[in-house]
Amino acid sequence: MNAEINRQWLLASRPESMVGVDNFARGEAAVPTPADGQILVRVTHVAYEPAMRGWMSERPGYTTAIPIGGVMRSQGAGRVVDSRHPGFKPGDRVSGMFGWQDYALAAPGGELLSVQKLTDGVTEETALSVLGITGLTAYFGMLDVGRPQPGDTVAVSGAAGATGSVAGQIARIKGARVIGIAGGAEKCAWLTGEAGFDAAIDYKAERVSRRLRELAPEGLNVFYDNVGGEILEAALNNIAVGSRIIICGAISGYNTGALPAPPRNYMAIVWKPSIMAGFLLGQYADRFDEARSQLGEWVADGRLTYAVDVQEGFETVPHTFLRLFRGQNLGKQLCRIA
Amino acid sequence: MNAEINRQWLLASRPESMVGVDNFARGEAAVPTPADGQILVRVTHVAYEPAMRGWMSERPGYTTAIPIGGVMRSQGAGRVVDSRHPGFKPGDRVSGMFGWQDYALAAPGGELLSVQKLTDGVTEETALSVLGITGLTAYFGMLDVGRPQPGDTVAVSGAAGATGSVAGQIARIKGARVIGIAGGAEKCAWLTGEAGFDAAIDYKAERVSRRLRELAPEGLNVFYDNVGGEILEAALNNIAVGSRIIICGAISGYNTGALPAPPRNYMAIVWKPSIMAGFLLGQYADRFDEARSQLGEWVADGRLTYAVDVQEGFETVPHTFLRLFRGQNLGKQLCRIA
Repeated sequence: MNAEINRQWLLASRPESMVGVDNFARGEAAVPTPADGQILVRVTHVAYEPAMRGWMSERPGYTTAIPIGGVMRSQGAGRVVDSRHPGFKPGDRVSGMFGWQDYALAAPGGELLSVQKLTDGVTEETALSVLGITGLTAYFGMLDVGRPQPGDTVAVSGAAGATGSVAGQIARIKGARVIGIAGGAEKCAWLTGEAGFDAAIDYKAERVSRRLRELAPEGLNVFYDNVGGEILEAALNNIAVGSRIIICGAISGYNTGALPAPPRNYMAIVWKPSIMAGFLLGQYADRFDEARSQLGEWVADGRLTYAVDVQEGFETVPHTFLRLFRGQNLGKQLCRIA
Repeated sequence: MNAEINRQWLLASRPESMVGVDNFARGEAAVPTPADGQILVRVTHVAYEPAMRGWMSERPGYTTAIPIGGVMRSQGAGRVVDSRHPGFKPGDRVSGMFGWQDYALAAPGGELLSVQKLTDGVTEETALSVLGITGLTAYFGMLDVGRPQPGDTVAVSGAAGATGSVAGQIARIKGARVIGIAGGAEKCAWLTGEAGFDAAIDYKAERVSRRLRELAPEGLNVFYDNVGGEILEAALNNIAVGSRIIICGAISGYNTGALPAPPRNYMAIVWKPSIMAGFLLGQYADRFDEARSQLGEWVADGRLTYAVDVQEGFETVPHTFLRLFRGQNLGKQLCRIA
C-alpha cells in the first residue's frame, strides 16, 4: 500500500432539490494498489455532466444511484502511476470513470466507458470534451436518432454546453441549418461566431417559441433537447411534419425535487406526426471507436470546435459542479486537480 | 332543388370542458342537388370517434375546427339517391364524411377518406368500423409505427374501443402477446374472449402499472395509446428497452378544458431508450386500399373480430356521441338514422 493519502469527495447526502456543496463531504483513503489487470491513475482532470445530478438520487433513472459515503462518480483524465495491465505503463495518459479523487483504480476493457489511452496530440481537454461522454452523446444522438439531412432545419437546446455545441455542429457538417438555444449574449455570440451556428436564441432575453417561428417558418426537422420544460414545449410548437425530437436530457428539471416537467403539448407529435426518442450512450458502445475517429477528424479539419471551462483545485471540485446548473459554463466543464 | 327537408345537427357552441348535447342544435336545410362530379347520399348510419371532440374546438390540432353553425362533421354510410358522377348510380351503398344530416353532397375521389363504395357482402357496420377510419387507424398505427414482432409483448389502451380492439388483434395476428386495458368487467371479458387478447386489465378495478408489471415482467415492446394521462404513465413505467409507444389519441384529456395531461415520466423513453411517435391516418392515404383489403381478408378468415354499438334515431345522434366519453361503447359507436 502506498503511504500517500488519496483525497476524495464523497456523496454525503441526496439533494432534495437544488444540489449544493453540502451534499458532498471530504474523505481520505490510502492510495490503493492495483490488482492483476488493474491500473492506478493519478487523476489530473475531473469532468462534469448534468447526468451526474441523476446519479446522486434514487429516483427512477438509467443508472444505479451512488451510495451515500461513496466517492462521487465522474469521468476524468490522468496519468498511469502503477500498472498490472499489459497494455498500460506508468506515464500513459488516460481517461475513464475515475471519480472525484486523486487516485483511481481502473480495469481497462472491463466496462462501459472504460479506460482510454490518450494518443499523442490529444489533450486532456479534448479527450474529456469532444471525444468524451458528451461528444459521443452528441454524435450518436444527432446522427442515429436525429438523422439530419441536407437542407433540414435543426434546433438544439443547451446549445453552448458540451453536448449541445457538438450536436449542433454535427448537424451543420451534415448540411443542415442550425439554430442554437442558450442563455446569455456571450454564449449566443460564441454559437454564431466560433461554432458556426446559423442563428442563436437567447432564452433569457427572447421568447423562444416566437423566435423559432421566425427563424424556422417551415418548422424544425430535428430538435435535440438537453433542457426539457418550457424550451421543449416551445420546440414542439414549431416542429415540422416528420420531425425527430431527440430527448438527450432535461437539465431544467434536475434540481426541482421532482421529475422534469413533461411537455404539456406532447400531442404535437400527433398533430405534426413526428418521433420523440430517447437514447443512451451505452447502446452504441461497439461504435465508440468509429465516433472518436470521426470526431477527431472533424476537429483536426477545423470543422468542429469546442469550448472548455477549466476551474482549478481539488477544493473547487464540488463548487465547479454547480456551475452546470447555474448556466455558468460555456462548453465542457472541467476542474484541474493536479 | 328537392322539396324534402334535410335534417341536420349543427355545432351550436364550443364546449369549454365536457361536451354536452347543448353544444349542438337542430337545423334544417333544403335537400341539395348534386353538381357535376357530385353525388347526393341519403345517410343511414352516423359513425363516431373521439377525435371529433377535437374538431369542435379551436385548440391546436391537426384539423380545422368545425365552424359554429356548421353541420357536425363525421363519417357515415348511406345510399346514393342522385348522381352526377360517372362511377356512382342511385342505389349504390357508400361511406364517407357525410356529417350529422339526412342528406349529404359528396365529390368522390376529391378528398381524403372520400366516398367509398360498399362492395357486396360488406355491411355498413363493417365499412364504418373495421374498414373505416378507426380500423385504418389501428392498421397503420400498429403495423407502421408499432411494428410488433413475434414474441413481443404489446399493450393497448382503450382496448375495447373501435381502434384499440383492432390494433390489439393485429398485433396478435403478427405473433405478439397482447394485453388490453379497458374499463369494466364486460369489456375485459370480451377482450380475452371473443377478441382473443391474451390478458385484459380493468383500469376501473385494478392498478394498471402493477398489473402491467405482473403481466409483462420483461416490459412492453409496444404500447398503443388511445387514452393518455395516468394510463400512458403506467405504460411508460413498464416499457422495455427499444419499445415503440404509439400516440394515437388521449381520450382521457379531451374534455378537461385543457390540453391532455402529458406523461410526467416522459423521460422513461431515455431511461429505457424508446421511441414515442404520433401519426395521422392521412399520411397513409395511398395505402388505404391495401389496408382495407388486408383487414377484410382477416375478417373473412375469422382472425379479426369487431364489435359495434348501434343506437337508433336521428334525435339520438348527439346523445350517442357522449357515450364515447362515458366509456359506454364496446367497439364502434354508430347511430342508425334511416
